[in-house]
Amino acid sequence: MSRTIIVAAAQMGPVERGDERAGVVDRLIAMLRQAHGRGARLVVYPELALTTFFPRWHIENEAELDSFYETEMPSNQTQPLFEEAKRLGVGFYLGYAELLTDKDGKKRRFNTAILVDDRGRIAGKYRKVHLPGHAAYEPARPWQHLEKGYFEPGDLGFPVFRAMGGIMGMCICNDRRWPETWRVMGLQDVELVMLGYNTPVRNAVASEPEHVRMFHNHMSMQAGAYQNGTWVVGTARAGLEGGCDMMAGSCIVSPTGEIVALASTAEDEVITAACDLDRGRYIKETIFNFAAHRRVEHYKIIAEQTAAVAPPE
Amino acid sequence: MSRTIIVAAAQMGPVERGDERAGVVDRLIAMLRQAHGRGARLVVYPELALTTFFPRWHIENEAELDSFYETEMPSNQTQPLFEEAKRLGVGFYLGYAELLTDKDGKKRRFNTAILVDDRGRIAGKYRKVHLPGHAAYEPARPWQHLEKGYFEPGDLGFPVFRAMGGIMGMCICNDRRWPETWRVMGLQDVELVMLGYNTPVRNAVASEPEHVRMFHNHMSMQAGAYQNGTWVVGTARAGLEGGCDMMAGSCIVSPTGEIVALASTAEDEVITAACDLDRGRYIKETIFNFAAHRRVEHYKIIAEQTAAVAPPE
Repeated sequence: MSRTIIVAAAQMGPVERGDERAGVVDRLIAMLRQAHGRGARLVVYPELALTTFFPRWHIENEAELDSFYETEMPSNQTQPLFEEAKRLGVGFYLGYAELLTDKDGKKRRFNTAILVDDRGRIAGKYRKVHLPGHAAYEPARPWQHLEKGYFEPGDLGFPVFRAMGGIMGMCICNDRRWPETWRVMGLQDVELVMLGYNTPVRNAVASEPEHVRMFHNHMSMQAGAYQNGTWVVGTARAGLEGGCDMMAGSCIVSPTGEIVALASTAEDEVITAACDLDRGRYIKETIFNFAAHRRVEHYKIIAEQTAAVAPPE
Repeated sequence: MSRTIIVAAAQMGPVERGDERAGVVDRLIAMLRQAHGRGARLVVYPELALTTFFPRWHIENEAELDSFYETEMPSNQTQPLFEEAKRLGVGFYLGYAELLTDKDGKKRRFNTAILVDDRGRIAGKYRKVHLPGHAAYEPARPWQHLEKGYFEPGDLGFPVFRAMGGIMGMCICNDRRWPETWRVMGLQDVELVMLGYNTPVRNAVASEPEHVRMFHNHMSMQAGAYQNGTWVVGTARAGLEGGCDMMAGSCIVSPTGEIVALASTAEDEVITAACDLDRGRYIKETIFNFAAHRRVEHYKIIAEQTAAVAPPE
């Protein structure tokens, strides 16, 4: 039986700081319908899709900060997206800021993504592990990147989920640069990894040409795909948002590491590809046959040592 | 003080099954002199540089098999290379088949590389960990890839060495495809990784376009470079050897993942680049600041589980 599923990346143009959820959800639904019209059964939205990328601002007022988070999912405001997706029989990945209050009354904040299946059920949840940026306000920066202040590192690991006929994984933005992200899912036989990203076009703290940054964006996903024999769908929030130019380049990557669909704008844009979930099988059975070739006795340092330690002088 | 060192990759065209070591060493010396004339202080030769890539044949006669291995290094036949390199003040990476006899009289075989420093001393040794291919003769293959039969997996891990003014690492051929290889060295603050490879242009066991195979070759090195902020020098044995077309594409990759020098033939060819060993520092201090960003509590499976295990149906 064919295991081919048409998948869409639904890239978003800017969402400004004052934009209401309702208008954002309307945009998500418009792209959902476009994707459905092109045969898609799964749509991948960006990281923190419901709001602007608020970690670029130092927000001291807690009520204002809280206003960027969701305390339930679906929420009243996202319910129309869930309903329309279920009606169309389309699953989706959605990134959002998650706020919960634990039993001691302490607020906990995560950069989260969920996978909703084609029957409208939340099939999986992921909380971003690799938070980039910094925790405290740094006035010298042209823009802030306060993810380490606004979120805790994810506490769910990198789980995979059987959904939509395949083995599905999720990660978020900076996670894509870390080979550990991909390998942990590869060791669970993942077949399709979804991720959203918010990445500035320019490096705020080092000299780095813009084209090299796009190369890093794509190469990270392509290497993760190839080295684990998995499809990858990477979706950007793009364009000039809050005065910061955000990278586009949303793409669908085959298990060979090749980009098979690519966004050509920095605006709301749907791209699709027909993804045969068996396409990576030959890679998993030959060059990356983990059982035959991995030598875990030499990998201990990866899981036991956080920082780099140079050899003695 | 500048930490820039000019490095060369000395790609080799074919070595045939009956070729004598003396002629091969003459070719290595000729490229050493070329590299020195271009200012190089370090030359990277291919994997199994002294002989043909003999794992492509099923060799039943043990004396013939043994004839492809070195029992000491330097050997009488490689001594002229060591002497000329020391005279010129040039270090080198050399891949060769290593045969030793342990205290119980058992033969042990490794696919080995050494780093010889600019004063002619063996500064480091590496034994290939990720052996590709198969252990037993497979008559259906167009050519054999008997590395798992002719070598044991390396028993030295992925050590790094302070030499030539930097922190130097080594791997061999198929190791380059495995992100674990790079990360283990990255966690030791490696600044330059040397590797030789022997890779057929065509996939012997699966349908895969030739250009995709070259893309995988380069991407593996580029991702390893970027994700660990290290220089990479990858050197091929190339051209039609023993009836098998071998991939060229020798390259020098900067810590940004960019290819900064590339071979343009499938013959003996020297390429060089000026490698600033501090070039990767900004990557190690920002996006891949391991101390700030790695979350080892979620990586355990990488070092504890060899094979992929799919989630329950």
